[in-house]
Amino acid sequence: MCTAATYKTKDFYFGRTLDYEFSYGDEITITPRSYVFNFRHMGTLSGHYAIIGMAHVAGDYPLYYDGINEKGLGMAGLNFVGNAVYNEVEEGKENIAQFEFIPWILGKCATVKEARALLANINLVKTPFSEILPCAQLHWIIADKNEAITVEAMADGLHIWDNPAGVLTNNPPFNQQMFMLNNYMHLSAKQPENHFSDQLGLKAYSRGMGALGLPGDLSSASRFARVAFVRDHSVSGDTEAESVSQFFHILGSVDQQRGCCEVEPGKYEISLYTSCCNGDKGIYYYTTYENHQISAVDMNHEDLDGNTLVRYPVLQGEKIHMQN
Amino acid sequence: MCTAATYKTKDFYFGRTLDYEFSYGDEITITPRSYVFNFRHMGTLSGHYAIIGMAHVAGDYPLYYDGINEKGLGMAGLNFVGNAVYNEVEEGKENIAQFEFIPWILGKCATVKEARALLANINLVKTPFSEILPCAQLHWIIADKNEAITVEAMADGLHIWDNPAGVLTNNPPFNQQMFMLNNYMHLSAKQPENHFSDQLGLKAYSRGMGALGLPGDLSSASRFARVAFVRDHSVSGDTEAESVSQFFHILGSVDQQRGCCEVEPGKYEISLYTSCCNGDKGIYYYTTYENHQISAVDMNHEDLDGNTLVRYPVLQGEKIHMQN
Amino acid sequence: MCTAATYKTKDFYFGRTLDYEFSYGDEITITPRSYVFNFRHMGTLSGHYAIIGMAHVAGDYPLYYDGINEKGLGMAGLNFVGNAVYNEVEEGKENIAQFEFIPWILGKCATVKEARALLANINLVKTPFSEILPCAQLHWIIADKNEAITVEAMADGLHIWDNPAGVLTNNPPFNQQMFMLNNYMHLSAKQPENHFSDQLGLKAYSRGMGALGLPGDLSSASRFARVAFVRDHSVSGDTEAESVSQFFHILGSVDQQRGCCEVEPGKYEISLYTSCCNGDKGIYYYTTYENHQISAVDMNHEDLDGNTLVRYPVLQGEKIHMQN
Amino acid sequence: MCTAATYKTKDFYFGRTLDYEFSYGDEITITPRSYVFNFRHMGTLSGHYAIIGMAHVAGDYPLYYDGINEKGLGMAGLNFVGNAVYNEVEEGKENIAQFEFIPWILGKCATVKEARALLANINLVKTPFSEILPCAQLHWIIADKNEAITVEAMADGLHIWDNPAGVLTNNPPFNQQMFMLNNYMHLSAKQPENHFSDQLGLKAYSRGMGALGLPGDLSSASRFARVAFVRDHSVSGDTEAESVSQFFHILGSVDQQRGCCEVEPGKYEISLYTSCCNGDKGIYYYTTYENHQISAVDMNHEDLDGNTLVRYPVLQGEKIHMQN
Repeated sequence: MCTAATYKTKDFYFGRTLDYEFSYGDEITITPRSYVFNFRHMGTLSGHYAIIGMAHVAGDYPLYYDGINEKGLGMAGLNFVGNAVYNEVEEGKENIAQFEFIPWILGKCATVKEARALLANINLVKTPFSEILPCAQLHWIIADKNEAITVEAMADGLHIWDNPAGVLTNNPPFNQQMFMLNNYMHLSAKQPENHFSDQLGLKAYSRGMGALGLPGDLSSASRFARVAFVRDHSVSGDTEAESVSQFFHILGSVDQQRGCCEVEPGKYEISLYTSCCNGDKGIYYYTTYENHQISAVDMNHEDLDGNTLVRYPVLQGEKIHMQN
Repeated sequence: MCTAATYKTKDFYFGRTLDYEFSYGDEITITPRSYVFNFRHMGTLSGHYAIIGMAHVAGDYPLYYDGINEKGLGMAGLNFVGNAVYNEVEEGKENIAQFEFIPWILGKCATVKEARALLANINLVKTPFSEILPCAQLHWIIADKNEAITVEAMADGLHIWDNPAGVLTNNPPFNQQMFMLNNYMHLSAKQPENHFSDQLGLKAYSRGMGALGLPGDLSSASRFARVAFVRDHSVSGDTEAESVSQFFHILGSVDQQRGCCEVEPGKYEISLYTSCCNGDKGIYYYTTYENHQISAVDMNHEDLDGNTLVRYPVLQGEKIHMQN
Repeated sequence: MCTAATYKTKDFYFGRTLDYEFSYGDEITITPRSYVFNFRHMGTLSGHYAIIGMAHVAGDYPLYYDGINEKGLGMAGLNFVGNAVYNEVEEGKENIAQFEFIPWILGKCATVKEARALLANINLVKTPFSEILPCAQLHWIIADKNEAITVEAMADGLHIWDNPAGVLTNNPPFNQQMFMLNNYMHLSAKQPENHFSDQLGLKAYSRGMGALGLPGDLSSASRFARVAFVRDHSVSGDTEAESVSQFFHILGSVDQQRGCCEVEPGKYEISLYTSCCNGDKGIYYYTTYENHQISAVDMNHEDLDGNTLVRYPVLQGEKIHMQN
Repeated sequence: MCTAATYKTKDFYFGRTLDYEFSYGDEITITPRSYVFNFRHMGTLSGHYAIIGMAHVAGDYPLYYDGINEKGLGMAGLNFVGNAVYNEVEEGKENIAQFEFIPWILGKCATVKEARALLANINLVKTPFSEILPCAQLHWIIADKNEAITVEAMADGLHIWDNPAGVLTNNPPFNQQMFMLNNYMHLSAKQPENHFSDQLGLKAYSRGMGALGLPGDLSSASRFARVAFVRDHSVSGDTEAESVSQFFHILGSVDQQRGCCEVEPGKYEISLYTSCCNGDKGIYYYTTYENHQISAVDMNHEDLDGNTLVRYPVLQGEKIHMQN
C-alpha cells in the first residue's frame, strides 16, 4: 500500500511512499506549461502550471502517482481498494477521468483553496486510460503550505475531508482513520506518567515508553497512526538538508521491508520509492528500496515553458560512498 | 537506546544503531594487528586480530561501540542501564575492564565458539577508562556467521545467553526479552486467518494485517520485538548491494526519529548512526541521522599489520545526488 | 455506558448491562396488553403485545431501558452520546418520540422482520418526555431468535444496520464498530500458531493465549470487541439454567467494576444491573452490582390482559446463602 | 489456569478463581485444631491453627487449593507449569511435600511475618501424595491483612517475593509478571490526556478510555495485569456485603467463560469456582461457574477444637430468586 505526508519548516514538503510488489516503470517527470493535456471529456488544456512528480509515462501521457506544481501545490493518489467508486459521465459536471485527476488539479490550482473551488463541480468518472490500464482504485491527498485535504469518491458520493493530520494511507475511509487516532491520544514523546498504582513502584525501564501502544505493523490503519504520530512530533532544523532528512525519517517510520508483507507466496510488497517534494523550490527528492541515497530533480533547472515532457530515470542500486 | 542485529546471505552482516541525544565524537577506527593494547589488569596485547568499528578515540585508545575483526567476529555494546553490574578485580580471573571488553574479545577470538571459551574465566571489572569517562552500563552481542550470544554482567553474575534471534536492544535482560517474544508468536507476514467468527464476514481490509499487534514505539522491548520480526522475515538477494540494502531496512524499522523520544525538555534521542559490517569482507558501512547515503570503510584497503590506529571521520550531512 | 447481547440455545436470550454512576430508580415492569399508550404524535394504542423489561416509571409511564414482548422480540436502548440526532415532527411520517420507541416497536411487532417494516416510515422525533426528563441520546438493538438489527438516528438520517454480531455498546456508530472487528479476526479460543519464526522456539507459556490482543478496558469499542468474541465463542448446555448462567458470563466479560471508570472525582460508573430475558418464556432475569444472585420476574405469572403496569422492585444487596 | 487476589476494607479478604476443564471433586473443608497432620518427612502435627478452604479430600486428607486459618492468614496454590521444580529430601532442612505446603504454613503461622520465618528453612520436596495424585506444579501466594508474598520453587532455588500487587496468576515467574506491569503504568481509571497532538482535536469518544491498552484475553500475563489494575483501583463500602460484593467483581474481571479457552477439541477451561475468604471472620464465600449466587461457610459455626474434617459440598446450579 502507500503512505503520504506533509511537513513544514521554512519551506513546504510533500511526499509519499509507493508500496507494491512490482513497479510499472516510473520516471521523475516534468510536465512543462505548454504540454497539451487532452482530457477525455473536458477538451484540451495547454496553458497550465508546470508539474514535477513520479509518473508512469504511457504514450507520452504522464500518469502521475504524486507531484507538485510550480505554485507549491502537491497531490498524491493512494490505493483505496474496495472503497473507491467512480461515476458515469454526467452532463453539467466537469467530468474528469480518475487518471486525469492529478493533472487537472495541479494544472489549474495554485492552492488547496483553489482546488476546493474546482472540486465543487467535479465528477470523477471511470473512463479508463486504456484497455490494459484500467482505473486504479485510489483516494487523494492535496496539500499546500497552509492546509491539506483528502478526496474520496465512494458509493455515497464525493467526500472532501479536511486533513489536519497531513497524512494519508489506505483503507478504511479517511474519517474512520482520523476517528481511530482518538485511541492513541494518550501517546507521548515523553515518558509515561504512572496512573496505574502508587503502591507498586512502577517505573519506565527504557526511554521511549511514552508511545507504548503505537502499532508497528504494516497495515494501513497502523501506518496511519504511526506516521501521524511521528510527523506530529517531528523536530528538525529548517535548512533544506535538515528538512529533507527529517522528512525521509518520517516516511521511514512506515517503510515496508521486503519479507514482512507477503502478498502471495514469494511475492512481497516493499516501499518501491519514497519521495519528498519541496513545494517552494520545485525539487523532487526520492530514495528507492535499493538506494538509500537521496536523489533529486529540480524542475527549475528545466525550461518550464516547453511542451514536451522532461523525464529522468529513477536511479536504482545502492550508491555507496567508499571512504578508502 | 540502541538496537543491534545480524543478517546472513552469502556473507555475514552485523550492525547496530546508536541512539542517543548527542555524540561523543566518533570515528570509523581500524586497529591493526600490531597496535598495542595495554590492558589495565592483563598486561599488553600486541599481536591480535585487526578490528574495524565505530569508536570514540580517547588518547589514542579506541573505545569501540561496535566492530568486527578480520575473522568475521562482530561485537557491539548496548545500553543496559540499571541492570549492568561490574565486579571488583579478583585474583585468578581474567580481569577485563568494561571498556576493554570489545578489544579483548575481537582481538583474541575468531569465532563465537572461541569467545565462549575465553569468557569462561573472565571477570568484567569496574575500572573506569578515566575520571571523565566512567563505566557505561552495557550488555553485549557477539556474533559470527554461525551463531550469536549475549553477555550480561548483572548482580547475580555473568550471563552468557544463546541469541537465536540475532538481535539485541536494551532493558529488560535478554532472557526476558526472548520470553516476551512468545506473546508475538502469532504474528505473520501473511494475512491473518479468521478465527474470530465464521458469521461476521470479517476480512482483511488492508495488506500487511498479519503482524497486527507488533509494537511501533521506541521502547527497548518494542524495538526488540519489531526488529526480531523484521529480521526473521527478511528476504533479499545475496549480492553485496542487496544484502547491505536489506540490512539497513532491517535496522530502519527501529530508527529513532527526532522528536519522538524526548529525554528532557527539547532534547531528543535519535539514531545517531546505523552500521552494517560485512564480516567476510571487512567492510564497515554506515549511515548517519543526517546522511541517508551509505558510506563505507574497507579494512582491507589499509595496512593491517601496522601499529597505529587508522581513523576515518563519520560523514555528516545529506549527500544528495542531483540528477539535473 | 452499556453493553447488550443476544444468545441462543434452545430458547432465545436477550439482555444488557446498564452502566452508569447512579440509578434513576428502576423497576421490572410488565405492561399488559390493554395498558393505554398515549403517543405524543400517533394517538393512543391500547391493544398491543405485552412487554416485560426494566423501566423507570414516571407518572405511570414505563420508560423502558430494555425489554421483550410476549412474542419474543427484544429491544434495548444504549447511550450514543454525540452521535444521536432526532428530528422535528414531519407530516406524513410516523412521528415517534425517542422515549416512545421501545413501546412502539415492542407493542406492535412480533419479529425483527415486522420491526423493519414498521421502521420504514418512522421519524424519530425530539419531543421530550417532560421538562425534567429530556431526550436521552441513544441507539437501539432489536432482536429476535432469528436476527438482530441496530437502529441509529444520526445527522445523516436513520440507519438500520444488520447486526450479525448480536451485540451493541456505544460510540462509535455501529458500522465502525463492526469494521474494527476486522482488526481482531486472528483471535482464537485455541492456542496461537507460531508464524513469527521457526528458529526461536517460541511457545505458548499459558493457556488462553489465542486471544492475545483482545482489549480489556471499559471503553465502548473495547467492550464491543470483547463481548463479541466471548459471545461468538460461547459454549453451554441448552437447559434454562445453563443458558441463563452462560448469558451472565457473557455480559460479565464487560462488567464495569467500581473504581475503574472514574467519571468525575470520586464518582464511578458501574454495571448497575445486568439483564437476561428469555424471549420464548417471557422471563426477565437480572443481577445488580450489589447482588450476584440472579433474580427473575416471569410475565406469564401475571394477567397480561390487564391495563395497569405491574411493577417489581429491583432487589439490591447480596443474598448470600449460608451453608452452616 | 487461576487467579488469586487480596482486598482490604475494614476486614481482610483473600480469594481466587480455580480455572480448569474439569473438577477433581472439591469441598469446603474445615480442618479443626486437633486434626492430625501426618507429614511425610516432618512427623505429626496435631495442635495447629484451624483452617477453612477449598480442598479435594483424599482418604481423609485435605488437599487444599486455597484457604485461610483462624488467625487470618490466607494461602493459595496456583498452576506454575514448566517452572515449578521440587527437590529431593535433604537432611537438616524442613522437608515439606508440595501437597503439604498449605497445611504446614496455615497450621503453624499467624502472619506472613511468621511464614517468612518458617520458610527460611523449608525444602519443598517432590514426594507425591499418591501414585494417582502426582505433584502439581504450583506456586503460592501467602497473605494477611498487612502484606502478601509469593513463593516459587524453581530450578534455581526457592524464591520468596514481596507481592505488593496482592495478585497472582500463573506463568511467567512472579518477578517477570511484576516487571511487565511497567508497560501498563500509564493506564488510568480517568480519561486519557491528549499528548498525541494539539492540532487534531482528538477526544475521548467513550467513557473508560483511560485504560486502553489493558489486555482482555485469558492468558496468565494478561489476567495478571487486568486483575492488578482492577484490584488497585477498586472502590467499595466497607461493610461485609459491600466488600464481598466488590471482591467478586475484582475476580469477575478475569472470569474464564466457557468456550473462550479451548484446551483440546471440545474441552474448555472455565472458572470452576471463585472464592473470597474473610480473614478476620473466618468465612469462606464462593460462587461456581453455574451458580452466580454467593454461598458461604463460616468456620466459627463449627467446633474448631475437633479432630475430624468438617466438609460442605460445593453448591452447583443456579439458585434463581423468582420474584413472582
